[in-house]
This record gives sequence, structure tokens and C-alpha cells, in this order.
Amino acid sequence: MSNKVRIAIDAMGGENAPKKILDGIEISLKTNKENFFYLYGQENILKRELSIRKKINDFCEIINCNDIIADDESPLSAAKKGKETSMWKAIESQNEKACDISLSAGNTGALLLISKLILKTIEGISKPALAGLWPNKNNMNVVLDLGANIECSEKNLIDFACMGSALFKSLFENDSPKVALLNIGLEENKGNDILKKTYAILKSNKLKNLNFCGYIEGNRIMSGDVDVIITDGFTGNIALKTAEGTANFIKEGLKKSLNRLSILLSFNELRKFRSKLDPRKYNGAIFLGLQSPVVKSHGSTDPVGFAHSIEVCHKIVKAKLIKKIESNLITVDPLDKQ
Amino acid sequence: MSNKVRIAIDAMGGENAPKKILDGIEISLKTNKENFFYLYGQENILKRELSIRKKINDFCEIINCNDIIADDESPLSAAKKGKETSMWKAIESQNEKACDISLSAGNTGALLLISKLILKTIEGISKPALAGLWPNKNNMNVVLDLGANIECSEKNLIDFACMGSALFKSLFENDSPKVALLNIGLEENKGNDILKKTYAILKSNKLKNLNFCGYIEGNRIMSGDVDVIITDGFTGNIALKTAEGTANFIKEGLKKSLNRLSILLSFNELRKFRSKLDPRKYNGAIFLGLQSPVVKSHGSTDPVGFAHSIEVCHKIVKAKLIKKIESNLITVDPLDKQ
Repeated sequence: MSNKVRIAIDAMGGENAPKKILDGIEISLKTNKENFFYLYGQENILKRELSIRKKINDFCEIINCNDIIADDESPLSAAKKGKETSMWKAIESQNEKACDISLSAGNTGALLLISKLILKTIEGISKPALAGLWPNKNNMNVVLDLGANIECSEKNLIDFACMGSALFKSLFENDSPKVALLNIGLEENKGNDILKKTYAILKSNKLKNLNFCGYIEGNRIMSGDVDVIITDGFTGNIALKTAEGTANFIKEGLKKSLNRLSILLSFNELRKFRSKLDPRKYNGAIFLGLQSPVVKSHGSTDPVGFAHSIEVCHKIVKAKLIKKIESNLITVDPLDKQ
Repeated sequence: MSNKVRIAIDAMGGENAPKKILDGIEISLKTNKENFFYLYGQENILKRELSIRKKINDFCEIINCNDIIADDESPLSAAKKGKETSMWKAIESQNEKACDISLSAGNTGALLLISKLILKTIEGISKPALAGLWPNKNNMNVVLDLGANIECSEKNLIDFACMGSALFKSLFENDSPKVALLNIGLEENKGNDILKKTYAILKSNKLKNLNFCGYIEGNRIMSGDVDVIITDGFTGNIALKTAEGTANFIKEGLKKSLNRLSILLSFNELRKFRSKLDPRKYNGAIFLGLQSPVVKSHGSTDPVGFAHSIEVCHKIVKAKLIKKIESNLITVDPLDKQ
């Protein structure tokens, strides 16, 4: 087991937990047996679920937890009741080095707050960010922050650029991902003061490990021009949800106007495109900036989506993401050396 | 002519001007003869174009202008060279009451700056905003600000709510459009301080003419739940462009994966949906907050899109939009009476 990635799983978080979680593990084990799962949750329920999935028993260990954080609980109330919950205990096991990474499909706000409370931030990073994957013409982007930090300074945005770049390197084979700042125009004088300051620092080329390409507008997020897109959590959240809403609007409109869409869906090429857009593939937001990585699976995803999140966890640990972030940051402190 | 809407047109602005402009006027006159067009631009060119469109001659008058504002000119340099340009002269004619509204497909930044320089703002409004139309499941939304004001105070956002509501009433038959604030969650404590303050004022129900429905998230912009969506110009611009980019990504992906899409497009129902999404219908951003209305047509739209902008101009004047905005604002000054 020494080479396996040890994943602490909050087995009680999200819709249809823990059934979905265990089905997701089963799917994941079909293609990758290099993970070991610590299941945090109610022992009797988890035992019963494991007993009907014999194939995965050798890859799992149950750690009993008496409490659960509800999906609609406020982060603060969740953190207060925290210590006996499956989410808290899973994250806590990272501090004790009992695992390499945590994965939860539970309450996002609670997960973010509990992660911050338990795990320290990487030296030099003041605000952890929520990064996500976004489809584009070539492959996928990393976009951050998607909602953890409503207001960000230039220092935060530069940290996000370093962390996002390290994440992209970890997930995809690319040594020099292109990084851009989300803005409302491409000219240097566009945007608010924080964006202009961030642009000036990144453009000065003092960050040797960073391939900064300037500004990007919202209509080019999916064009594949760049790999990592940096923004504050308010703007990132609006952009992400607007894109989701637009995609749903078009999908539902097409379905409604064309009963025969089902015939179309059998065309191989269209199936490929549908698969590219499959939201389960983009499932798994990553909390960046903590000394140990935490991955959030979408609460409503299905077992296939959860299996994708497991794969993200595996890649992050194998690629030594945290070390990559640290070395990106250590290279230069942009604010001191301006 | 006394009942006709008098539209001052910057006939030299945008791609393929003035040909596109005159073709657009011709299309518009097929369904609506209740407009008269003052064409600002180079007389010799406009005369030649009019000579090959005999049908529209009785509805147009040329006013010669020796200069043109280029599409890539900075707003400041445009405003400096301004006074002899077709854009400047068209807007100036509003001040002299020679027309009811201006329409240009030219440089947006220049149009905004020149409009602000020449036309006064409505009493009580400090920042004019750029409003646009956005398709939704039921019909269309009005969304503002789409990029005129990067940073907005609660006073600005409340003005936008009043103005957007008045615009919706003018364009569609609806006495009580639903107004919502764009945010990253629905709970009262979500978002930044300015949003929270704006929410509190709007929620206090002191604005009798305003049907405020709380927050809306990006994924519901197109759901048809509300009619008017309020945001600052930075966020609005990012959301608009992200939606455009997402729609293009899906459209291109579908085309590429399905050569036989052309067959599909002949299906009546799909044609209806395509027509609903046709960007030419949403062409025409409206500058709100000035004492006289200015409409911006997309620079790259075609004659059909330009004709849609003409129709927007017609409706705005016929519905007495400016009076509607003034009476909305006069009802109560929300910041004084808190």
C-alpha cells in the first residue's frame, strides 16, 4: 500500500451519500487501483454498503463518526458542531498525515471553513481559493477563484496565478501553462485598480515560473487560448454560473424544439461532443492554498462524477501539487521585489 | 410627420457603414413607416447610397459631416476631434430638440463619452448605464449595467433598478416588471457590502414603483424568473461575454460534430428556437440616465440587426421612456428616506 494515494473521504456528504460515494469508488477502481480510501461516516451504514460491494472491500477502511454536517447548514454552525462529524474527521486526518488528500461531496461553505480551521495555509498565501475545471476547445481550463473570496487584493490574485499554474501542471502534461486575468477588455488600462496593479506585476516578468499572457474577456474563456484564468471569487462565481445557465438554456431549448434529438444523440460525433460537455468531467473543485489538498465534489453529481473527483485527487497527490505551489511561490515574492 | 419618431443616425459608424445602415432602414420601413431618419455623415457617399434606394428617400434627410470617429479610436481622442464627426453631430441634434433619439453602430466608448459630454444626466442620476436585452425562457430580460461603470455605489445600483424597470415597461407590455440583483447566492448575507446595502434599501419597499424580488444567481439569468437584472458594469460585462462565449462554444461544437446540422435547421421547431437565440434581436444597447436616449447598435451586426435597433428606438420614444424614468425616480429618493 505504500505507493497508493491515501484519500480521506467524507462518506456522508452530498445527495445519495453514502451509496453514491461507494458506487463512485467502485467505478474508479475499475481503471485505477492505486488509491486507498478511508471512509469517514456512520459505521453501521457503511458496513452494510460495503458488504454488498465485495470488490472494493480491500481498498477501504471505515472510521466511525457519530455526526453529519447537513447540506443546508451554515458554515459557522457546521464548524461549531464539527468535531464528531465525518467532514471534520476526514480533514483532521490530513493534519495527522494519516492520508494525502480529502474528498467530500458535502456542504461547500462548511468544507471551506473547516479546511481553513484545521489545515494551515501554505507559507506566503493568505487566502485559499476554490479552483475548477472548465471545458474549452482544446481541452480544459483551470479557473479560480470560483467563490471562496469575494474581494481579492493584487497579492491574492498573484497567489492564485501561481497556484492555478501549479494545478494545471499537476493535472495535465504541460510545463508552461498560459495564465490570463479575466477582465472586460484587453487593453492595459481596462478594469479596476486591483486588476491593473496585478497586470503590471505579472507583466514585469519577475515570476519566472509563470507564463503570463495578459487579460482575457469572458467570451474567450472557452476558446482554448489560455490554460489558467484568474479572477476574484465574486466574478468567478458569476461567470461560472452564467455559463452553466447558458448551456442549460440552449440544451433545454434544443430538446424542446426537437423531439427527435434522441435520434441525433446516436450519431457518434455528437456523442463525442456531448461527452466533452459532460458536467461530471468537470466535477471536483479544488481548494488551493492549504498545506494539504482538499477536493470538493458536486453535491448532486452521480457515481461517475464522483469517480472523476477521485481521479483528480489521485493526480494532485501523484504530481506533488503542494510542493509545486510552494516552489512557484518561493521563486520570487512579487510584492517585495517590485 | 409630426407624429413620427425622429431618429438621428450616425450613418458612418460600424462595419459596412453606411451601406448596412441604409439597408437596415429599408428593412425597418417595410413594417414601420412611423420613423423619420436624419442621416449624419459624408453627403456625397450618402447621396449615392440613397440614389439606389428610392423607396427610403422620403423618410431620410442628410446632414453633412466632414469627419468620422474610427472604431478603434480611444474615447478621449474621439471626443477631442469630435465636433465635426457624424457621431458628435447626431448626438448634438438631440440637445437642439431636432430629433427624439440617437442611434449609432460606431465606437461604444466614444459614443458613451460624447453622449455624457453633450447630453445632461437626468436629475438625481449621477451615472448613466448601458442596458441590454438578453433572451430567456419566456421572452427577454433587461440587464444593466453592461460595462459603462466598473465600480458602482448602492445609489447607482438603485438608479439602475429604477431605470431598468422603466425600460422594461417601455419595451414590453408589463406594468410591474420583476427586478433582481445579480449575486453569488440568494441569502441576504451573500455578496459584497454594496450589494447588501442595495438589497436592504430595495427590500424596505420604499420604492413603490419597483417590484423587487431579491437576488438572482448567474445560472438563472435566462430562466425567465425575473425581467430586470441589476449589476455593476464590470460584473455585467463579464456575465454577458461569458454567456456569448458559452453559446458560441456549443454552437460551433454542434456544427463541427454534426455535418448534417443543416438538415436539422429546416425543422420548423428548431428554426423557431434558433430565431429566439438570434443575436440580431438583442442588438441595441441602450444608454440610460441621460435626458435624451441614445441607442448603440452592435458594430458588426447586419442590416436585420440594425433594423431591430431602429425598432428599439421607436418603442423607447413612443413609450416616453425618459418621463417614465423621471417619475420612477421622483417617487422617492431611497437614500434620503432610509
